Amino acid sequence: MPTVDSSRMANAIRALAMDGVEKAKSGHPGLPMGTADIATVLFTKFLKYDAADPHWPDRDRFILSAGHGSMLLYALLYLTGYKQMTLDQLKNFRQLDSKTPGHPENFITEGAETTTGPLGQGVATSVGFALAERLLAAEFGGEVVDHYTYVLCSDGDLMEGISHEAIALAGHLKLNKLIFLYDDNGITIDGPISLADDVDQVARFKACGWDARRIDGHDQKAIAAAIRRAQKSDRPSLIACKTIIGYGAPTRAGTSKAHGEALGAEELAGTKKALDWEYGPFEVPDDVLNAWRSAGRKGKRHNKEWRARLAAQPDAQRDEFKRRVIERKPSQNLNEAIRKLKDKLVAEPPTVATRKASEMALEALVPAVPELLLGSADLTPSNNTRTKGLKEVEPGQYGGRYIHYGIRELGMAAAMNGIALHGGYAPAGGTFMCFADYARPAMRVSALAYIPTIYIMTHDSIGLGEDGPTHQPVEHLASLRAMPNMRVFRPADAVETAECWQLALERPKGPTVLALSRQNLAPVRKTADTDNRCAHGAYELVAPNGEAKVSIFASGSEVEIAVAAQQQLSQRGIASRVVSVPSLELLLEQPEDRRQAIIGKAPVKIAVEAAVRFGWDAVIGADGLFVGMNSFGHSAPAKDLYKHFGITAEAVVSAVEKRLG
Amino acid sequence: MPTVDSSRMANAIRALAMDGVEKAKSGHPGLPMGTADIATVLFTKFLKYDAADPHWPDRDRFILSAGHGSMLLYALLYLTGYKQMTLDQLKNFRQLDSKTPGHPENFITEGAETTTGPLGQGVATSVGFALAERLLAAEFGGEVVDHYTYVLCSDGDLMEGISHEAIALAGHLKLNKLIFLYDDNGITIDGPISLADDVDQVARFKACGWDARRIDGHDQKAIAAAIRRAQKSDRPSLIACKTIIGYGAPTRAGTSKAHGEALGAEELAGTKKALDWEYGPFEVPDDVLNAWRSAGRKGKRHNKEWRARLAAQPDAQRDEFKRRVIERKPSQNLNEAIRKLKDKLVAEPPTVATRKASEMALEALVPAVPELLLGSADLTPSNNTRTKGLKEVEPGQYGGRYIHYGIRELGMAAAMNGIALHGGYAPAGGTFMCFADYARPAMRVSALAYIPTIYIMTHDSIGLGEDGPTHQPVEHLASLRAMPNMRVFRPADAVETAECWQLALERPKGPTVLALSRQNLAPVRKTADTDNRCAHGAYELVAPNGEAKVSIFASGSEVEIAVAAQQQLSQRGIASRVVSVPSLELLLEQPEDRRQAIIGKAPVKIAVEAAVRFGWDAVIGADGLFVGMNSFGHSAPAKDLYKHFGITAEAVVSAVEKRLG
Repeated sequence: MPTVDSSRMANAIRALAMDGVEKAKSGHPGLPMGTADIATVLFTKFLKYDAADPHWPDRDRFILSAGHGSMLLYALLYLTGYKQMTLDQLKNFRQLDSKTPGHPENFITEGAETTTGPLGQGVATSVGFALAERLLAAEFGGEVVDHYTYVLCSDGDLMEGISHEAIALAGHLKLNKLIFLYDDNGITIDGPISLADDVDQVARFKACGWDARRIDGHDQKAIAAAIRRAQKSDRPSLIACKTIIGYGAPTRAGTSKAHGEALGAEELAGTKKALDWEYGPFEVPDDVLNAWRSAGRKGKRHNKEWRARLAAQPDAQRDEFKRRVIERKPSQNLNEAIRKLKDKLVAEPPTVATRKASEMALEALVPAVPELLLGSADLTPSNNTRTKGLKEVEPGQYGGRYIHYGIRELGMAAAMNGIALHGGYAPAGGTFMCFADYARPAMRVSALAYIPTIYIMTHDSIGLGEDGPTHQPVEHLASLRAMPNMRVFRPADAVETAECWQLALERPKGPTVLALSRQNLAPVRKTADTDNRCAHGAYELVAPNGEAKVSIFASGSEVEIAVAAQQQLSQRGIASRVVSVPSLELLLEQPEDRRQAIIGKAPVKIAVEAAVRFGWDAVIGADGLFVGMNSFGHSAPAKDLYKHFGITAEAVVSAVEKRLG
Repeated sequence: MPTVDSSRMANAIRALAMDGVEKAKSGHPGLPMGTADIATVLFTKFLKYDAADPHWPDRDRFILSAGHGSMLLYALLYLTGYKQMTLDQLKNFRQLDSKTPGHPENFITEGAETTTGPLGQGVATSVGFALAERLLAAEFGGEVVDHYTYVLCSDGDLMEGISHEAIALAGHLKLNKLIFLYDDNGITIDGPISLADDVDQVARFKACGWDARRIDGHDQKAIAAAIRRAQKSDRPSLIACKTIIGYGAPTRAGTSKAHGEALGAEELAGTKKALDWEYGPFEVPDDVLNAWRSAGRKGKRHNKEWRARLAAQPDAQRDEFKRRVIERKPSQNLNEAIRKLKDKLVAEPPTVATRKASEMALEALVPAVPELLLGSADLTPSNNTRTKGLKEVEPGQYGGRYIHYGIRELGMAAAMNGIALHGGYAPAGGTFMCFADYARPAMRVSALAYIPTIYIMTHDSIGLGEDGPTHQPVEHLASLRAMPNMRVFRPADAVETAECWQLALERPKGPTVLALSRQNLAPVRKTADTDNRCAHGAYELVAPNGEAKVSIFASGSEVEIAVAAQQQLSQRGIASRVVSVPSLELLLEQPEDRRQAIIGKAPVKIAVEAAVRFGWDAVIGADGLFVGMNSFGHSAPAKDLYKHFGITAEAVVSAVEKRLG
């Protein structure tokens, strides 16, 4: 590497960040300017990457949890020579269709490992990255998998509650290759951090099983020494780097004015002068750029050596690694496993809760789909997520396939996102559906960033019973269905559950929620179907006897109620049909003709779901009938609650008869 | 107090808890059995309460954050003589319409201070209780306000991320009258806590500015000594009490089998034997019951003395205390302040963002509504929540009216719930609407437990612009509207904003979200209205010229688009009307005739909202037209985004013309 003063290299980041924000008249210059020294040390001396091959599976991961400082990342990607990151992209910062959006988005920018807009998400997602690395190394060997996960995080990341779940889990699991570089700049949007916080972060991390120390974040030697120490630790490491936000800005450095707006022409000029940086907007002198480009090429050799090591693996091992980590294809045994299971279920239809049906599906899937990585937020016996004999992941021992995530729904969701993004595993984790609210910020990242995380959410209605309204989802189906790219399945019996599991595992670019009942459900699917009937979101489960006057739509545990109502209507001479709707939003996404064919033309439409009506009008119309909830639930046995809230076959029949006059 | 062995008093709790769970065949005996000694010490020696007057404003608050152990609370309420809590109620544990639901619900049971089902909520809500006490004491004096907030919490509470936000905030604010009793039983549902966690809680709390120590949770003397020390601390206190879950149960004590199910006849009998408790189900011997009842009467004298002190306050002071803390009536100046503001706004209609309009409303409200307590989760300059000169609350100094909650949306929401439940203040806190996802678990508690917390949520659409999709709400309006008892207002201009603020402050039994724009909006309400036109959720803003062929529905920032579309349609000879819908769900709740009158009979219905369609079909019908979002947003300037996603007057006109053929 040519010898260029490394503080000039850091100043190149500062200048590009300032210029990018200035041109956009929008963005956050303070963090890139404050952390340029840290980033320079990391990207020139430690980070294992090959700018020419952003997807190299054994690269170190760099996660900018403080995503508002995105110009730091974009400047680094440009400087180190990522092909996609041209100077024009930096000039188009925060504009439509640029590769330089306001916050890093992994689905837009090569080199952005994950989407980090909402504070704390990067920190928590990184735990999944680091865990996936350890799991893969245990499975495929350190020859093929051996990399660090570095996280640059901010005060905001560490104030968010999600950070506690993340660091406690990482500390517990002894994820020693996870290294946090904390931009300890003492400034938040409202002013000095002392307005709202005085946590001793080093002591806090130590209490959670981390190595932690403080350094001067502008002393490049100290930064290097701290990273070197952290790499050797037997636990995850926090390096709290004392920095000056907006470093170099004559009047704004060290103040909240440096955080989230363009500096303005005068302050920008003053900063460049103070930094002794005599170049125009977006201009980087050749010596500095060459030094950076040279750093970006350093990994090429390691990459080549790694490819040789991978090639030397036994065929089966290498092919499996390629399938799971590089091509990310589902197991070819998946379809067969589900087909066999369905045959078995049709032969002897079980009356089980769909959470139990999910366990039955998992018993078939675990051997067939080796990437399946199960877990629960401390509800293992309730979520039915752990199959017989499934070995658990333990601190320092990563050969298991089951994770005790602890009472950390949000931390679990974010960790699963990280695992899925890293590649190699299909994470699926359980909690009660009501606690989707806790997990929601990370679930939104799954949906937004096209991450195939699977959420196993049991106890999906008032059918939960005695635990009461805080544990009974009522609005959760609606709130999840409303989220773009989120797939919600609520299967009605064991066969539908198997089909929904298949669809979840085959979905490459987005998350799936499996909403499962606590209570036993009668089987409704009794014939062998080679096709997956849940694939279009809904289907006619019971055909009418004659021209249907009534279409009854239902999902999950209410499908058996719909079937019973259909029979009662039939006895009264009213022809009706039942449409099972395992996924309302998938039904609505179908092409017009298919959607209309499934919905049908019966003059009376009624939906039955133990949840709020919100969203169902798209199927049944604003004048459609609805049997369900319009309030929170109560604490009582499930049977009493269904009766109390009038979610019964009799209520369906009575509503239909009233409408028919 | 008669001298009864205090361990027998504790055993009465254990026996009732076991019996209650056994009869219900559902519930959690382990926690009450494990913490009975702690509760006995607290309720007989420290807690200031008067069982005959559950609402005594200056009572100490006891919050069972580990709400699954609800039988602990119900047993205590029965034993100490709360009138409502009869033996029959204990026998009806977890049954429909009982006062003994599965988890404590403040709106069902006198003596339950807040709803504590989802783990961590009690811990975080307690911060609000303790803060409200300090604020009220600063305002009304220690003669009238002087009480502690005690919290019994569990491993699960402390694993949830919300706990970090809560303890960091409490530590920062030096809430020294907040005392956590941590049931450190080392057991979770999956098994020993070491499966998932090994945080050193004492070190963790110390890092967050708390006093913290460990004691034996079955040593009543040690418990008393620790509470005594905690009462004198200058900071909040954690007392980590090492306990045995299911204390006394011969085979299940100390295991996860004691946590969440009935013990069964045999184990129950064995436990009673081991505890030397020779009484039948629900039987408490007279000496023990008398001792408990005597404890429940101890506060009567304090209550009486307190009433005398209140009576001795200056009239104005006392009346204000009664209005705000006891009667909880809105300020009588509210209506007048809003009326004057509206007159001013109509005289000079401002083109401002509704977040700015909200600030204008607050400038009028702060002097008129002294209970208004504002704050922000570190977005003060963006949320426009701090009015000129509004003093901030500082550690140890509680005379302010503005709270820097820190980057803690969930902690803020829960703290506001606690403040509102405590009484004396109307808390309103700001964040970006997208981060409603972080706050959601506590927002659900607001809605479920009838708490009038006000959420100021700015940057309510793609109108946020460059920060990109992680910061642009798309599904949030739908997800919040779907929640029972949640009121969402999305005002269209400054007049509507003022009206929505009035409705929020007048809503006694539920939370309100104010969804506010980042971008400037043209005024649409230009005439003086003495009535509050937002009060029914929607109203006809622009009448048609002739019989309407088209009804255009819109909310917030899209109302000006609807108005422009109406004009363009009019120019084309198509009669249309505009209905402003500040609250979709409030419109849907109106009586049938009023709802139909507002929605109207125009053959074409179209809704315009920069959000997903989900939920709008209830107004426009399944075949209605919609101009809005069907994906996440992008990072770009707001104007470019509206154009990119086709949310324009032209798009409305074109969709209508296409439909009309």
